[in-house]
Amino acid sequence: MTRGQVVRPPVPSRRVTSVREAGAEDWPGIWQVLEPTIRAGETYTYPRDLDEAGARTAWTGEPGVRVLVAVEGAAVVGTARYLPNHPGAGSHVANASFVVAPWAAGRGLGRLLGEEVLARARADGFVAMQFNAVVETNVRAVRLWESLGFTVLATVPRAFDHPRHGLVGLLVMHREL
Amino acid sequence: MTRGQVVRPPVPSRRVTSVREAGAEDWPGIWQVLEPTIRAGETYTYPRDLDEAGARTAWTGEPGVRVLVAVEGAAVVGTARYLPNHPGAGSHVANASFVVAPWAAGRGLGRLLGEEVLARARADGFVAMQFNAVVETNVRAVRLWESLGFTVLATVPRAFDHPRHGLVGLLVMHREL
Repeated sequence: MTRGQVVRPPVPSRRVTSVREAGAEDWPGIWQVLEPTIRAGETYTYPRDLDEAGARTAWTGEPGVRVLVAVEGAAVVGTARYLPNHPGAGSHVANASFVVAPWAAGRGLGRLLGEEVLARARADGFVAMQFNAVVETNVRAVRLWESLGFTVLATVPRAFDHPRHGLVGLLVMHREL
Repeated sequence: MTRGQVVRPPVPSRRVTSVREAGAEDWPGIWQVLEPTIRAGETYTYPRDLDEAGARTAWTGEPGVRVLVAVEGAAVVGTARYLPNHPGAGSHVANASFVVAPWAAGRGLGRLLGEEVLARARADGFVAMQFNAVVETNVRAVRLWESLGFTVLATVPRAFDHPRHGLVGLLVMHREL
C-alpha cells in the first residue's frame, strides 16, 4: 500500500431483492427456504418430518394457489403463496403464507413479500385476506401483520403444540383489501 | 269393519336411526344427502356446481378424515365427517362437518350426529373441536352448536357470498372436548 493513499472500506454490496411469480425451476430454492422452518416446527402446522414431495404439494399444489419468490441474484431468499381461503362462496377472501430463509431474516423480506402479496391479491379481485393459524408466540409475524393492517379476530386457545412452549394459541387475523 | 269394533289409528312407525362409520358402499346414499345442500349453496363453501367425484373427494378424501352416516333401515339420512383441523402441531384439534337430508330435517338428526362426532373425536384423542366457517345466517346450526357447548370465537366479516343474502359473516366456533 502506498503511503498517503486513502484506504476506504469496501462498499457493502447492495443487495437487490426482487419479488416475482415462481416457476417450476424455483422449487429447489424454495425448498431450501422452507425446510428449516418446517423442521423447526415453531411457526407452521406442517408435520416437522414432511418430505420434499409433500412440502411441494402443500406449498404449490392447492387449487388456485399462486406462489411468489423473493430473489437476490439467483438465490431464493423467501417465498409466499396466496389462494382462496375457501372455495365456492368463500373464494373472494384470500389466505396467504410466508417464509423467509433463516439466513436472510431480519432485513425486511417478510414485509416486502407481505406488501407484494397484498397488492397482487387485491389486483386479482380478492376483497379481504385472512390468516387462519398465526402462532401467537411468533411475535415478529404478529407485529408485522398488524403493521400491515391486519387485526386479530380470535385466538384459538391451545391450538398449536409448540416444541418449546407447549400448547399455545393460534390467531385468526384479517384485513380488507 | 264390524260394528262395535274399536278402530285405532295406526301406530306411527317408530323410526330407528343409528349412526355408524361409513363404508365405500354408503357413498351413493351420502351423495343423495349432500347434493341438495351443495346445490343450494347457503351453508357450505363447496362450489354449487361441484360434481359427484369432486364432492366425494372433498367429503371423504382428506388425510385422516372419518366419515359417519345416520341411517334408517337402508336409507342414509345424514352424514358427518371429522378430521384434524390442521396437520402437524395443530392436529390435536378436530374439525367437523354435518349435512342432514332435507327430507329428514327438523327431527334431531343434526344433534344426534353432533353428539356422536363429539364423543368419537374425544375417544380418538382430540382435545378440542373447531368449526372454521359456520354461515351466520344458518341460525339453526349456530343454535345447535351453542347448545352442544360451542362458543363463537370470531365472525369473519362478509366472508360468505350467500345466494339470497349477499355477503354475510362466517363464524369460527370452538369447544374443548
